[in-house]
Order: sequence, then C-alpha cells, then structure tokens
Amino acid sequence: MEQDLQNTLSLLTRTPGALNALLRDLPEMWTSRNEGENTWSAFDVVGHLIHAERTDWMPRVRMVLQFGEDQVFPPFDRWGMVRETKGKSLGELLDEFARLRAENLGQLRALNLQQADLQRRGRHPAFGVVTLSELLATWGAHDLTHLHQISRVMAYQYREAVGPWSAYLGVLQCAGHSA
Amino acid sequence: MEQDLQNTLSLLTRTPGALNALLRDLPEMWTSRNEGENTWSAFDVVGHLIHAERTDWMPRVRMVLQFGEDQVFPPFDRWGMVRETKGKSLGELLDEFARLRAENLGQLRALNLQQADLQRRGRHPAFGVVTLSELLATWGAHDLTHLHQISRVMAYQYREAVGPWSAYLGVLQCAGHSA
Repeated sequence: MEQDLQNTLSLLTRTPGALNALLRDLPEMWTSRNEGENTWSAFDVVGHLIHAERTDWMPRVRMVLQFGEDQVFPPFDRWGMVRETKGKSLGELLDEFARLRAENLGQLRALNLQQADLQRRGRHPAFGVVTLSELLATWGAHDLTHLHQISRVMAYQYREAVGPWSAYLGVLQCAGHSA
Repeated sequence: MEQDLQNTLSLLTRTPGALNALLRDLPEMWTSRNEGENTWSAFDVVGHLIHAERTDWMPRVRMVLQFGEDQVFPPFDRWGMVRETKGKSLGELLDEFARLRAENLGQLRALNLQQADLQRRGRHPAFGVVTLSELLATWGAHDLTHLHQISRVMAYQYREAVGPWSAYLGVLQCAGHSA
C-alpha cells in the first residue's frame, strides 16, 4: 500500500512547529523527567528526532536510490542522541530539529520523486527488502509515535496528582508498546 | 499529592498552539479519519476539547468553590461535541478552542487560588469526593490524553503504508486504553 507523498510531506513539515509550541519554555518538570530508568524525557525524544534527521531518513533515502537492495542500511543507534544533546538546552534542540527537518525536506523535494520511484527497494538490517514508500511513510509515523510518547511521558508526571481521574485517562494506562 | 498550579497553567496555555501547529490545513486524510466505528478523528477530538472548555472544567471549578461537597458535578457528555461541530471546519474549531481556553485561563487566574484552596473539595458523580487540585491536574492531563489519542489516530492511517516498520512503531500497537 503506497502513501500519497504530499500527505507525508504535510505531516513532516508540521512536527517541528507542533513540538515547539508544546515544549518551548515549558517548566523542566514536564520536559526533563522520564518514566523511570532507561526511559526518555521529552528532551531526550527531541534529541532522538534530531539524531534520526542526521543519520536515518535522508541517508537511507539516498541509499535506496543509489544502491537499491545491494547495500544494507547501517543500523540506527537508538541512544545516539545522548552525546549529541549533552550541555544543550531544549530550546537549542528545538531550533536544531526545525533547521535539520527543513533542510531534509528541501533535499527530499529536490529529488522530485515520482510515483514509480516509491516502489524502489532498499535493504533493512532486520526486515530485509523494504520500499522507498514504506521508508517515507515510516518517517511520518515515527514523528507520531514520538508525539504519542511525549504526551505519555508528560502525563506520567501527573499520574498521582489527578487522583481518581486516572481511571478515565487512557494515556496513564499506556505502557508505550515499544521494544 | 498536590500539583504546582503554575506547571498546570504552563501546559494548559500551550495546548491550543500545539494543536494548531500540528493540525491546521493538514490534509483531511489525517484529520477527518478515525479508527473505526464509534471512534474519534482528530476533528472530533478538537470538538471534544471545546465541549469540555464550555461545560466541564471551569464550571466544575466554580461548583467546588461555591458548593463544596454539597452538589454533585453534572455528568460530562462524551459525545456532546457532535452537534456543536456540525458544519464547522477544523480551522474554525481550532480558533474556537484557542479562544475558549484563553478565556477560561483568564478566569482561573482571576480567582487567584492559593495553595490552601487546592484542598477544597467537590463531589464527582462517579468518584465521590475529589479535590480542586485533582480537578485542575486532570484538566492538564486531559489535554495530554487527547494529544496521545490524536497522534495514535493519525498514525493509524499509515498502519499499512509503513510495511514491516509497524513492528518498531509503538503508537501502532496502542489500543487507546480508554473505557
């Protein structure tokens, strides 16, 4: 099943602004706390999105176009943001994410991909053959999985403050579902 | 456990801008589709947030301050937005939500609540006695549960387009957790 590339671009374009509106200058209680050991804060998630802009999405798009199924994507480092974010403020990360995303979408648009290009194939280290369409759709859905995560991590900070209403708040029952 | 009211206000202030940045002028594929029968689209969720601004949060705050435990909050109509949103565009709903939220936060600030006020009690139709602190914390967490929902409903539209990556995207495994 193919996506409409314009729909994906519309979403990818909006994520930096949405995170900026939600997170900039928010008290650190919301942005620097996580859900416990080896979990991420909102700050960490923005760092992860930056790391993916640098090392995952467009590099993999270019690999598909250049090498097809002949070269395996390098694995993505899920903790790769730790050293990159050290000493930075959340405001700096939000700026960096917006800048990198705009650059990457500029490069993606410049490729002028046609519908037939979306069927081109690459090789994922775990999944094997994947299509360019799947890669690009995942870029968009990946934004959403992390917006989902940020809202959950933030809500977690109020899990006791809401008292009995926790029973009505689905986000407080969410365990994250990620590996 | 009490919240810091400033933290709650910081969050409540930002939600309309975050939803606006994410949703305004986004293709309807993202905003008008839901997860199946009797589920909500992003459009419906914004309508629900508007309905809660009108009938839930500040009316209940005033009931606590005026009547304490002597009067039970009227039940909230979870489908109350259906008639209110009929014929409106998502842009109109986003404007309406921002306007109502700003008005309500202005009224909340004007109450000049002190820490002791947060312990005042009201009566919930299902939970019985609740505190003003719990009500206000829930207002904030309710924004987050619906941001969590919107990101999930949108990701659901790409559940097939992402191909094998669905295994890595926690949001696609989320069933919502709500009653």
